[in-house]
Amino acid sequence: MKFNISKESFLDAINQVQHVVSSRTTLAILSNVLLKAKDGVLELTTTDLDVGVTCSVPAEVEEPGATTLPARRLATIVRELPAQEVEVKVDEKNVASIRSGPSYFKVLGLTSEEFPALPRFDEAREFRIEQQVLRDCLRKTSYAISTDETRYVLNGILFSFKDNALTMVATDGRRLAMVEQELEFPQSQEIDIIVPTKAVNELSRLLGDSGEVSLRVTGSQIGFDLGESLLVSKLIDGNYPNYRQVIPGESKERIPLEREAFLRAISRVSLLVTEKSNSIKFIFSPGSVEIVATSPDVGEARETVAINYKGASITIAFNPEFAMAPLRNLSADEVHLHLIDEISPGVLRSGTNFLYVLMPMRVNA
Amino acid sequence: MKFNISKESFLDAINQVQHVVSSRTTLAILSNVLLKAKDGVLELTTTDLDVGVTCSVPAEVEEPGATTLPARRLATIVRELPAQEVEVKVDEKNVASIRSGPSYFKVLGLTSEEFPALPRFDEAREFRIEQQVLRDCLRKTSYAISTDETRYVLNGILFSFKDNALTMVATDGRRLAMVEQELEFPQSQEIDIIVPTKAVNELSRLLGDSGEVSLRVTGSQIGFDLGESLLVSKLIDGNYPNYRQVIPGESKERIPLEREAFLRAISRVSLLVTEKSNSIKFIFSPGSVEIVATSPDVGEARETVAINYKGASITIAFNPEFAMAPLRNLSADEVHLHLIDEISPGVLRSGTNFLYVLMPMRVNA
Repeated sequence: MKFNISKESFLDAINQVQHVVSSRTTLAILSNVLLKAKDGVLELTTTDLDVGVTCSVPAEVEEPGATTLPARRLATIVRELPAQEVEVKVDEKNVASIRSGPSYFKVLGLTSEEFPALPRFDEAREFRIEQQVLRDCLRKTSYAISTDETRYVLNGILFSFKDNALTMVATDGRRLAMVEQELEFPQSQEIDIIVPTKAVNELSRLLGDSGEVSLRVTGSQIGFDLGESLLVSKLIDGNYPNYRQVIPGESKERIPLEREAFLRAISRVSLLVTEKSNSIKFIFSPGSVEIVATSPDVGEARETVAINYKGASITIAFNPEFAMAPLRNLSADEVHLHLIDEISPGVLRSGTNFLYVLMPMRVNA
Repeated sequence: MKFNISKESFLDAINQVQHVVSSRTTLAILSNVLLKAKDGVLELTTTDLDVGVTCSVPAEVEEPGATTLPARRLATIVRELPAQEVEVKVDEKNVASIRSGPSYFKVLGLTSEEFPALPRFDEAREFRIEQQVLRDCLRKTSYAISTDETRYVLNGILFSFKDNALTMVATDGRRLAMVEQELEFPQSQEIDIIVPTKAVNELSRLLGDSGEVSLRVTGSQIGFDLGESLLVSKLIDGNYPNYRQVIPGESKERIPLEREAFLRAISRVSLLVTEKSNSIKFIFSPGSVEIVATSPDVGEARETVAINYKGASITIAFNPEFAMAPLRNLSADEVHLHLIDEISPGVLRSGTNFLYVLMPMRVNA
């Protein structure tokens, strides 16, 4: 195998696939990236057997072929190459010679025949969505994914395709983020699937500002085809909890909030929380909200923010990190907080398609 | 105590003193910063009992006084304050109220009477040196300080004041960095002292581009007076090894090297070293040096750099990290490598006042 490629394209492609490679793998071949050169295209593939990524870039292929090389080492070498032109030659023993300017690297690889094949999606349900839209939906939900490995069905995002809409949900039991997106597909395609965290993270990295992504779903696998790259992942096997019943009914108070100003105020007040007293009190009254943190050992913090609210006074306490997470990941200037009373969950809404349910904490005196 | 101060001045002062505060201290008061307000000046002091820093900034002092507040928490609060004007008021119970724009913070402090006093330097030897010069000397030597705690006399930089020169030396037994600086002082002031790593790091942070620093040395302590700030430190008690005998005599070959190009080439070739084979071979010959790393499990890297050398061919191996460290911290365009043979130490020289002795490694085939 022999090809010439620009340093920039090579590096870009390696960066797209290298994060999948686990640093602690027992199978040596999984530390490697599969390189296939054919018909003016270099294709790079990595996998940890759960998640796999393939990326294609143009290359001047002089001799087609395939090999596998250590992914991280290859990435550091390509990043440091001194010239824009890179020549890669691999012999029949999978020894790669990489030349660029005055630099010469010899890297020992493994045969491509041992590299596990990615799953195929021949008889799959297919959905198409704008890359930017999907990226936005992931951003608005992924922070709420549970990291508790004993609740494995929550270690990912629910993608629910139903009634010509894609509903995405993430929760860790104390807060829940949900976003809905209209999407046309035949009723026969309706399905609920859970996409694991690692695939969510990789997908967020790969999705761009333009173009579509095609989702292909089989019983146990999902493929995200972005054109130049393809992400495949096992799905989480299990039933996602009934999230609809967590969402409170009609609210009594609807409080408009300037997202950025509110976020900055919480962020400052939260400097005075400790592990022991990790809650912040919000005292809503007509025209203003006072945000208060009190830690007996350390001190307290208070800040008042003007709000356009005319309803009844209500005091409620939240975990500050959980209150800030959606505010950081939304983009609207204004959001609305819906409250019933101080012991019922609050609901943060943005636009018509996003909501975030947050359990209150006990209000300390 | 009550004072008004600009956020910028307050933050700048806290940043200068906060690094001294150890995160794992058993004495609560050592987590705090001592604040003294008097005569238009706010003075901040921190110490870990080995190293201490004091910094003064202008403030509008309404009521003079002193207190101590948790250093790290105060730093995070001041960093996030929303307005430029900051008002600080401390009551007789050492409870501080900090106001800035809409923000209010109450922080519990401890009495200033418990804060340990920094040492005094009334009867000390005094030396004066340009801040920029001292910073440059620290930069050229500090990377070679030993981190092996069992060799405690090497856990710092030797400052040798002798024959109207300051010689600074750091070594870890495998390499040695030395810089000499002319300095006028009476012969009666001659002394050798060892300044510990933590003080070296703090001093590097405090030293600026202009102005002088005054060094005051007593038997067991050193003070660095920078005008607006003062660093004090215990000295390392012990005898520094006789470093002069480590420096090889006359060299056979003197090889001029373009510092940056040579550094970049070593850096690329070193991508192929592993923990097992952590050496790089330098094959010097008239007109060029070939730099080679060979790791049987991984592969090899080679790069040839043109050099203006007309002497005999000589091959020598070094630890790549040790070869790069001085090249990164020097600023001259050209440096010279002096070699005797492949088993004698190499000496890197820059200008007339810097040298770096590096033990060679066994050349592998």
